[in-house]
Amino acid sequence: MRILFLGDVVGEPGRKAVKKRLPILKEQYQADFIVINGENSAGGRGITPKICTELLRAGAAVITTGDHVWDQKEIVAHFASEPRLLRPINWPEGTPGAGSVVLETEFGKVAVINAQGRTFVQPPLENPFTVVDKEVTRLRDELGVKIIFVDFHAETTSEKIGFGRCFDGRISAMVGTHTHVQTADERVFPNGTAYLTDSGMCGPDESILGRKIEPIVERFKTQMPVRFPVASGRVRLCGAVIDINPETGLANSIERIQDIVEP
Amino acid sequence: MRILFLGDVVGEPGRKAVKKRLPILKEQYQADFIVINGENSAGGRGITPKICTELLRAGAAVITTGDHVWDQKEIVAHFASEPRLLRPINWPEGTPGAGSVVLETEFGKVAVINAQGRTFVQPPLENPFTVVDKEVTRLRDELGVKIIFVDFHAETTSEKIGFGRCFDGRISAMVGTHTHVQTADERVFPNGTAYLTDSGMCGPDESILGRKIEPIVERFKTQMPVRFPVASGRVRLCGAVIDINPETGLANSIERIQDIVEP
Amino acid sequence: MRILFLGDVVGEPGRKAVKKRLPILKEQYQADFIVINGENSAGGRGITPKICTELLRAGAAVITTGDHVWDQKEIVAHFASEPRLLRPINWPEGTPGAGSVVLETEFGKVAVINAQGRTFVQPPLENPFTVVDKEVTRLRDELGVKIIFVDFHAETTSEKIGFGRCFDGRISAMVGTHTHVQTADERVFPNGTAYLTDSGMCGPDESILGRKIEPIVERFKTQMPVRFPVASGRVRLCGAVIDINPETGLANSIERIQDIVEP
Amino acid sequence: MRILFLGDVVGEPGRKAVKKRLPILKEQYQADFIVINGENSAGGRGITPKICTELLRAGAAVITTGDHVWDQKEIVAHFASEPRLLRPINWPEGTPGAGSVVLETEFGKVAVINAQGRTFVQPPLENPFTVVDKEVTRLRDELGVKIIFVDFHAETTSEKIGFGRCFDGRISAMVGTHTHVQTADERVFPNGTAYLTDSGMCGPDESILGRKIEPIVERFKTQMPVRFPVASGRVRLCGAVIDINPETGLANSIERIQDIVEP
Ligand SMILES: [Fe+2]
Ligand SMILES: [Fe+2]
Ligand SMILES: [Fe+2]
Ligand SMILES: [Fe+2]
Ligand SMILES: [Fe+2]
Ligand SMILES: [Fe+2]
Ligand SMILES: [Fe+2]
Ligand SMILES: [Fe+2]
Repeated sequence: MRILFLGDVVGEPGRKAVKKRLPILKEQYQADFIVINGENSAGGRGITPKICTELLRAGAAVITTGDHVWDQKEIVAHFASEPRLLRPINWPEGTPGAGSVVLETEFGKVAVINAQGRTFVQPPLENPFTVVDKEVTRLRDELGVKIIFVDFHAETTSEKIGFGRCFDGRISAMVGTHTHVQTADERVFPNGTAYLTDSGMCGPDESILGRKIEPIVERFKTQMPVRFPVASGRVRLCGAVIDINPETGLANSIERIQDIVEP
Repeated sequence: MRILFLGDVVGEPGRKAVKKRLPILKEQYQADFIVINGENSAGGRGITPKICTELLRAGAAVITTGDHVWDQKEIVAHFASEPRLLRPINWPEGTPGAGSVVLETEFGKVAVINAQGRTFVQPPLENPFTVVDKEVTRLRDELGVKIIFVDFHAETTSEKIGFGRCFDGRISAMVGTHTHVQTADERVFPNGTAYLTDSGMCGPDESILGRKIEPIVERFKTQMPVRFPVASGRVRLCGAVIDINPETGLANSIERIQDIVEP
Repeated sequence: MRILFLGDVVGEPGRKAVKKRLPILKEQYQADFIVINGENSAGGRGITPKICTELLRAGAAVITTGDHVWDQKEIVAHFASEPRLLRPINWPEGTPGAGSVVLETEFGKVAVINAQGRTFVQPPLENPFTVVDKEVTRLRDELGVKIIFVDFHAETTSEKIGFGRCFDGRISAMVGTHTHVQTADERVFPNGTAYLTDSGMCGPDESILGRKIEPIVERFKTQMPVRFPVASGRVRLCGAVIDINPETGLANSIERIQDIVEP
Repeated sequence: MRILFLGDVVGEPGRKAVKKRLPILKEQYQADFIVINGENSAGGRGITPKICTELLRAGAAVITTGDHVWDQKEIVAHFASEPRLLRPINWPEGTPGAGSVVLETEFGKVAVINAQGRTFVQPPLENPFTVVDKEVTRLRDELGVKIIFVDFHAETTSEKIGFGRCFDGRISAMVGTHTHVQTADERVFPNGTAYLTDSGMCGPDESILGRKIEPIVERFKTQMPVRFPVASGRVRLCGAVIDINPETGLANSIERIQDIVEP
């Protein structure tokens, strides 16, 4: 079975492009299950209940997030009624929402986990390695889940590769998010886990991480505070498709996706 | 003319692979000028005078470095006698060594600049945007240099893309280093500067950033201090080739390189 | 002559207490020259032109700031017309405002310098050690200033003590700000510079750094985003008085101040 | 009953001064129970089994540590046989050693907890607020401990004051460590917990945090790597004495200590 993942959707340009192109991508890659990271889908900062519904209707089975998850206050209450919206699993006990979900599919149970790194990412959460270790054990041993997809939202390459290697053979795939730039290191690790350090974003192409170029360059030159509005123009959709053996839960292959959508 | 760049060479495995494969790569990509980042070439930490000479003899015209530049003490004095070895240009005035060099070639003067980012990289150096701005102006206006290659050693995608966009049209190419993972966003920006967020490293493939997997995973799980020895086995050489119009100094194209070298 | 310094004034409670008590403190400590750090005087975030005028009228000769200097946008333009308002001197060239000022007094010229640390303080500015070194040289050698007071706004004790030691004998006094907690290490260094790692703030006493206790404790427990309103109730004014020999510019003594003002 | 606490002992000068002066301080302050932070007692970096024994023999009932706890490898195994040596309690489960200890005294059970902050301190540990909350509940409810002393090893004033306020009324005292500079904010909080943001260190007075001045100033000026040897000369012992009502476990008073010991 095939999981299609799309990285951080940025603002309205990102959402529009996803809605327009997702049916075509689903067909093209014969995707059975779609996961989208929506942490920047509301004007670049967080996600609203309305946008969450929009992305689910567009075809996503699960929406993951990241460090921007609480940027829009109204989303906090929405987690109670929408189990397919995830926040990083390593938030402390008692935090609204959940960091994993199991869905029934024609290929059996499919689990999605969302976790957040701790190196150069705020705020400091629980250790993602130990928290996800417990969750993977629970999913596999208690619930008999074989197909497990993880969106690991983290900054550094060392923490991301460390995470992927740590779970090699126990999860189907880990794809990283947060840097908004796709890496070229897709591969299936020796024990069968598909891996990509970062998926890249779904956002305006003439931009810096989806935002207008000039203010950010100005900020780096002068250090003065500026606003960072979302950019416009053609959008690059970035993601990955993982082909998974549903019998074993291990990956056969992983392929990067980059697709240009004109506005 | 064509510049071949290879990212952070890690330890002996990285050096051996570079020496073995560089003649073939040079031929294959019709490279006229070779730049290699050597900041991890001495056991993963810094570079020694001997290794510097080794890499120059292997075919590099210029060696760049990064935050690990001073890890081997003996290198400090070596800068005085080897102008083709660079440290980031935005170290304060009075620091040993230089951050740029101009070489005469059959295509005219070729300049290489090495700079270091400030977001999540230690120690804090001078502003690379303003320092490189002055240097590019000097190279272009005073020395009449058209072909300018920059190795920008930085952690975050925002600082790297911001840097590339800032100098679009004034330098031939910027290739990033430091994360050791190649990104898949190579392109020529609208004003003619070739760009790649990170080149990726030249180091062992079954590794985390060139180092053994287990100790790093253990570190993330337990936080306890451990040693991070350089890994072994097959090496992946990562880099890029930029095709530059010597008349204008602008880039025609940029191509990523990943090449496996068996030990 | 005697300089009275008051640390970060927090919000309306801080301002009210300063205005009420400053005449008494001036009298009590026989202060000839008053410097106040106003970086949190506008609702805890920055300073407005109106508040700047208010603090100058209350008796301050110079207002210093810190990392919160630009929090209120309207202050940017105000620097052009008010030389007695300072922002850290190690902002890059071309930044609005100035980081030092020289005033004529009955004891001769008195200079105040405001600088900002780089360890764990954002954004990254120029090196305060080298920037202030140049400024102290200029003040002493070109302008013949002997009395030089520095407010060094920084996080870590190592950077602050390092700074004080670096300028021992060349400035009259360095008092630190930014942590909002007064340190108990006031002393005159061997070469005659008075020193205090942190002055402490002028803000509500039943608070965390001047802000309400509960939201901040909640934030540390849950990591969830919360608002941090300024607290109320009795105010603690924290600062220091430095007695300086105007002939040499060196300090005779430094005394810490903590004064409770009921609302 | 009275607890005497001494902050981070730095190297041989610190140890010598502690051994020489502790009997006098114990007498002078009528101390019943002595706690010493030893994280820098071995040449400035960590603690050895031998030094641990030395400090216990000198009169300490409990030795606390901090982020430097593992700097000397031989200490790891020592934790198993010495329950009076603590490492921060918020290290993950499975870490060698313990973060709290309960000792029987003539005033009943006395507990000491050692915890570490997460803002600007590496590595990232578990949430000290929730971990200590559980431990305090266990000590009070299960073991009936009333007298609880906490050494909270952290960088920022906000995390330290937040911690003290969070446990106000449930612990006898919290004294902070790590910055090596004593703060002047000692007080008993409204619900009866004695508090001091930082105890200050026990180390050479002509120094930067116990280390030689020149190399550190040089480092700040040039950013070049240097060694930071422990300084010498007269030592300043910094700490606090807390007077506790053994019936309630609440504090009557807290007094700062600074004591000069000539070599
Ligand atoms: Fe993110
Ligand atoms: Fe994002
Ligand atoms: Fe690096
Ligand atoms: Fe590197
Ligand atoms: Fe500040
Ligand atoms: Fe402040
Ligand atoms: Fe420490
Ligand atoms: Fe310490």
